[in-house]
Amino acid sequence: MTDSAPLFNRLALIGVGLIGSSIARAARAQGAVREIVASARSAATRQRVAELGLADQVVETNAAAVAGADLVIVCVPVGACGEVAKEIALHLQAGATVSDVGSVKGAIVREMGPHLPAGVHFVPAHPVAGTENSGPDAGFAELFVGRWCILTPPEGADPAAVERLAAFWRALGANVEQMPAAHHDLVLAITSHLPHLIAYTIVGTADELGEVTRSEVLKFSAGGFRDFTRIAASDPTMWRDVFLANKDAVLEMLGTFNEDLAQLTRAIRRGDGQALFDHFTRTRAIRRGIVQIGQDSPAPDFGRTHPDLPVEPLPRPYAGPDDD
Amino acid sequence: MTDSAPLFNRLALIGVGLIGSSIARAARAQGAVREIVASARSAATRQRVAELGLADQVVETNAAAVAGADLVIVCVPVGACGEVAKEIALHLQAGATVSDVGSVKGAIVREMGPHLPAGVHFVPAHPVAGTENSGPDAGFAELFVGRWCILTPPEGADPAAVERLAAFWRALGANVEQMPAAHHDLVLAITSHLPHLIAYTIVGTADELGEVTRSEVLKFSAGGFRDFTRIAASDPTMWRDVFLANKDAVLEMLGTFNEDLAQLTRAIRRGDGQALFDHFTRTRAIRRGIVQIGQDSPAPDFGRTHPDLPVEPLPRPYAGPDDD
Repeated sequence: MTDSAPLFNRLALIGVGLIGSSIARAARAQGAVREIVASARSAATRQRVAELGLADQVVETNAAAVAGADLVIVCVPVGACGEVAKEIALHLQAGATVSDVGSVKGAIVREMGPHLPAGVHFVPAHPVAGTENSGPDAGFAELFVGRWCILTPPEGADPAAVERLAAFWRALGANVEQMPAAHHDLVLAITSHLPHLIAYTIVGTADELGEVTRSEVLKFSAGGFRDFTRIAASDPTMWRDVFLANKDAVLEMLGTFNEDLAQLTRAIRRGDGQALFDHFTRTRAIRRGIVQIGQDSPAPDFGRTHPDLPVEPLPRPYAGPDDD
Repeated sequence: MTDSAPLFNRLALIGVGLIGSSIARAARAQGAVREIVASARSAATRQRVAELGLADQVVETNAAAVAGADLVIVCVPVGACGEVAKEIALHLQAGATVSDVGSVKGAIVREMGPHLPAGVHFVPAHPVAGTENSGPDAGFAELFVGRWCILTPPEGADPAAVERLAAFWRALGANVEQMPAAHHDLVLAITSHLPHLIAYTIVGTADELGEVTRSEVLKFSAGGFRDFTRIAASDPTMWRDVFLANKDAVLEMLGTFNEDLAQLTRAIRRGDGQALFDHFTRTRAIRRGIVQIGQDSPAPDFGRTHPDLPVEPLPRPYAGPDDD
């Protein structure tokens, strides 16, 4: 971003957690907006946003944040978006684009849509990116690079407004795709919501066993379990809202998952090694596909680093005259 | 490893995949053994091991490999260990230590133990470390650093032989713990086997949906799914054998997991946000515990790297005289 004009004049960010603060950093780094105004519910977050210099102005109310903004992005948990829409409705500038970053889109359309006045462009969005951390300090400008941002404009949305928001996300490094909100919710139910539910479940299971101590679970987690704990460390409020808001699609995917798990369980019980081998061979191909299209690192073990070998001399196996 | 004597004179490695080749590299780097002799079932693997210089000698038969070795480590899938024990039994040197690296220990004791002659020390072992890759090229010397290696010596094992093997694993950078084989199998069922089964299941589920295409699953996998695909890309033969060999413990853990999943499913169905929030808050603490004891990286997203922001100038939102 050097010589081209900003895509938007003033970006209002409602909520500045992992996603909101990453948008602020990336939009500024790319010169995608001329100015950023941020609001956050808690005074502590507002203070931290000011300290980090993430916005040109930090204001107390969402209504104040959106005044004069031509792009408003609501970055709060899905369950709080309807209330925010109500708060900002009367203060939106005519012609402004209103968007969000929620992991569920049907509920966002249902809960935000009715509050928004005619004359603003409502284009829900979901950048499929994140980490297990939350809060304004957790964000970074590169979070969206190479990831997908899904737009779910309602029928009749202004194509120019949709394209302008798409250009904004591309400026932040994202690939952009459009689909209906209902299809988004089905796709994300399998690629994100069900994996989180399963991870939350198994981490809970491991923590409750009488026969295996928590200390053992932690120590021997490198056998696979630790991968699940990262996802199960995601923000509890955000994920509570996701499951409440995308209940139907999640329950549908859960039904299919349970059938498949029952089938593999039966293969184990019956000692059907061929069925297990065939299944395990098939799933290996999916991983290759994800790495091939650049959606994960080709490095083994996610590229986790390994400390060097120890340098102390080995203890000697046999006692000898020069032993300690 | 500089001035101290090697712990063993000749290490025989039976099988040189990810684990075997990592042992070879680490043992040599640390001077833990004076000499390495390797055997592998396939001619292609033997040739590759020779090309990589992983062993001082590469031989065709397991019997030839163990001749004159004071440490024998069997690094083949669990289901093949019994056969290997039978092949090497008559060729083992008196006083040699025989070990393995299998992810299941009860079955190893049952299937290898009866073949091994009196006068050798049988000390089953399981280094809890690995990646999703397999084969001699996948190994690296640092794989075991900071990870745990669990020894499950049978009752009556010679304490000096056990300690010497423990010293070998510590030289490779591992922490060493001892426990009964049956307890190992229960601990690993939850920290490794069940996570793999769940990951294999969900990746299969995602690949079979009529409503969501494979291309969509791959593109939007950064929402959580991609983490599961790494584990579900693990070696199919190894994992078939694990589930067949540790059936009882895996089925027991599966039972508990299914109960817990049913409980969370009910909370979603009923819209019980508080139950979801409480569960998700509890699991976050487990992640912190794992990071605190050094069993995973504190870096967000496993330390995955993010490419830089794009440097091309942004497309301008409004058409103008100097637009393309």
